[in-house]
Amino acid sequence: MLDVYAFSTPNSVKVLIALEELDLDYRLHSVNVRLGEQKAVDFLTLNPNAKVPVLVDSSADDHRLVLTESAAILVYLSEKTGKLLPASGEDRFRTFEQLFFHASGLSPSFGQAGFFQRQATAPQPLAIERFSNEALRTLGILNGVLANRQFVAGENFTIADIAHFGWLWRREFAGVTLDAAPNVARWFAEVEARPTVQRAIQRITALVPQS
Amino acid sequence: MLDVYAFSTPNSVKVLIALEELDLDYRLHSVNVRLGEQKAVDFLTLNPNAKVPVLVDSSADDHRLVLTESAAILVYLSEKTGKLLPASGEDRFRTFEQLFFHASGLSPSFGQAGFFQRQATAPQPLAIERFSNEALRTLGILNGVLANRQFVAGENFTIADIAHFGWLWRREFAGVTLDAAPNVARWFAEVEARPTVQRAIQRITALVPQS
Repeated sequence: MLDVYAFSTPNSVKVLIALEELDLDYRLHSVNVRLGEQKAVDFLTLNPNAKVPVLVDSSADDHRLVLTESAAILVYLSEKTGKLLPASGEDRFRTFEQLFFHASGLSPSFGQAGFFQRQATAPQPLAIERFSNEALRTLGILNGVLANRQFVAGENFTIADIAHFGWLWRREFAGVTLDAAPNVARWFAEVEARPTVQRAIQRITALVPQS
Repeated sequence: MLDVYAFSTPNSVKVLIALEELDLDYRLHSVNVRLGEQKAVDFLTLNPNAKVPVLVDSSADDHRLVLTESAAILVYLSEKTGKLLPASGEDRFRTFEQLFFHASGLSPSFGQAGFFQRQATAPQPLAIERFSNEALRTLGILNGVLANRQFVAGENFTIADIAHFGWLWRREFAGVTLDAAPNVARWFAEVEARPTVQRAIQRITALVPQS
């Protein structure tokens, strides 16, 4: 059995999209990061880094596997099923290239832009400018990638599309629009319309308590 | 033939360490990021994201492969040779977990801590505090990982060790010491002592013009 510890966050939604795409059964467990539940002792035994998502695979070969880092979980699920990650050739390395461009570039800039715009306890204008500019710059790089490809790593939907989708879905937090990134807008609409993506969004947003 | 475009940076040194470990021949091309050469038109045709390192493999199966993102290059070189990335089992997924923890966690916090401490045009105390704390926090997470493992993904040296080494080697830029991270200190000394790592450091630091 697969257990997913998650909340309605850019990184969590990726794992649900992959599970829906791969048609795998899973149990979803809420870790309400707005209430700080990711810092509770029980959760820290799963992930000392205090971050969602976490995947627990009780059906792993020889033992219970606890895996953190959303992109590592995507690679794991791809290899478990033989899907969503090309087995060889240029598309395989473009998939890794985009996974790491997301993890090291687009994702941190979106996250920090949102933090300094919305959550810092005092204005930090240089930090706001730095990360807002970097979010737009990385979005522009992705827009260039998508000028020549249907999906971010080639002509097929891969886990790299799933990775980028998380933060693009939550771009409002970062103060980002797609007005200047028409290729990203085209790609986003296409990915968002997938029934698997719709189901993942529905399940993950249902974790947020209604006030 | 393999061509590497790089400079004496945390991300560039990773690629050289992997090439030395794998005993692959390569030509090294300097891109002096202190002079902004990564933004020159010729370089942008290799990497529109304006970052080193870039690998060009003219011996790829059917064409010339141009690959960016240091961790994606590490995966590529591992798969080209069948080394430094476990083929299956838990160590394989721990390797990816650590590659992505480095790319999304430790690396951005070290980079931003150094920027706001040293290069911002005006003091941003909250940003300095945020990223300095996060650099120490992620270092503490790595220290916990290394409490129970000889290397970051298990008992064998992998590309995840190479990834983490880059920023640990340049930790002074981030204002980080290993005083409170004895397991990282033990691991760092062991990795740094490898002859391959010494050769990589020698070749990459030789790219810096002597004034």
